[in-house]
Amino acid sequence: MPNSQPQLDRLFRALSDPTRRAVLERLSGGDAPMTELARPFRMALPSFAQHLDLLEECGLVRSDKKGRVRIYRLVPRPLKTAETWMAKRRVAWERRLDQLDTYLTDLKERTR
Amino acid sequence: MPNSQPQLDRLFRALSDPTRRAVLERLSGGDAPMTELARPFRMALPSFAQHLDLLEECGLVRSDKKGRVRIYRLVPRPLKTAETWMAKRRVAWERRLDQLDTYLTDLKERTR
Repeated sequence: MPNSQPQLDRLFRALSDPTRRAVLERLSGGDAPMTELARPFRMALPSFAQHLDLLEECGLVRSDKKGRVRIYRLVPRPLKTAETWMAKRRVAWERRLDQLDTYLTDLKERTR
Repeated sequence: MPNSQPQLDRLFRALSDPTRRAVLERLSGGDAPMTELARPFRMALPSFAQHLDLLEECGLVRSDKKGRVRIYRLVPRPLKTAETWMAKRRVAWERRLDQLDTYLTDLKERTR
C-alpha cells in the first residue's frame, strides 16, 4: 500500500500538537536548553519532556549534553520530507486542473 | 500561546494516518466516489467512511451527491496552509545558519 511510511505517520502526529509546534517555532530561531523551552507552558517538566522525546524520536529535533545542560536544536530535513509529500499531492491536483482547462479551451475552439 | 490553532492540530492529525494519505493521493489524480476510494483497503465501509468524514471535517476533501453516489474531491488549500507553516520554520532555521556563516567568515577575515 502506498503512503504507509511509518516515518510520515510519526512526523505528522508530532506536528499535530500545539506545544510541539511552538517548540519547533522557538528552535527555528536558535538552539535552547529544555528549561528555556518549557518556560512558556503551564506544564510539569516530565510532561514537557515527553513532548521533546517524541520530537526527538521522529527526528525533528536533536539534543546534546553540554556540561549539565541538554541543548536542543531543530533538524530541518523531516520538515522538508513532510512538505514534499504535501506539495506533490497539491501540484498533481493543480496539474490535473490545468489539463482540464486546456481540454475545455480546445473543445470550445473546435466547436466554434 | 502561538501555534494553538486548532485547524493545524486537525490538519496534521488527519495527515498522520496512511489510509487518509492514500485517499488524498488518489484524489490528487481526480475525483472519485467512496466505493472506488475504499477498494484498495481491507476495511469495513463504515470504518472507511470515518476516515473520509475526518478528511472532510478538516477541509482536505469535499463531497457532493450526484444522483445516488457521493463524489469526493481534494481541496488543496489546507495542504498549502500546512506546507506554509513548515516552510516558515525551516526557512527561519536556514536563515539563522546563513547569518552564523556570515558572522564566522567576517570573524576569520578580521582576525587574519
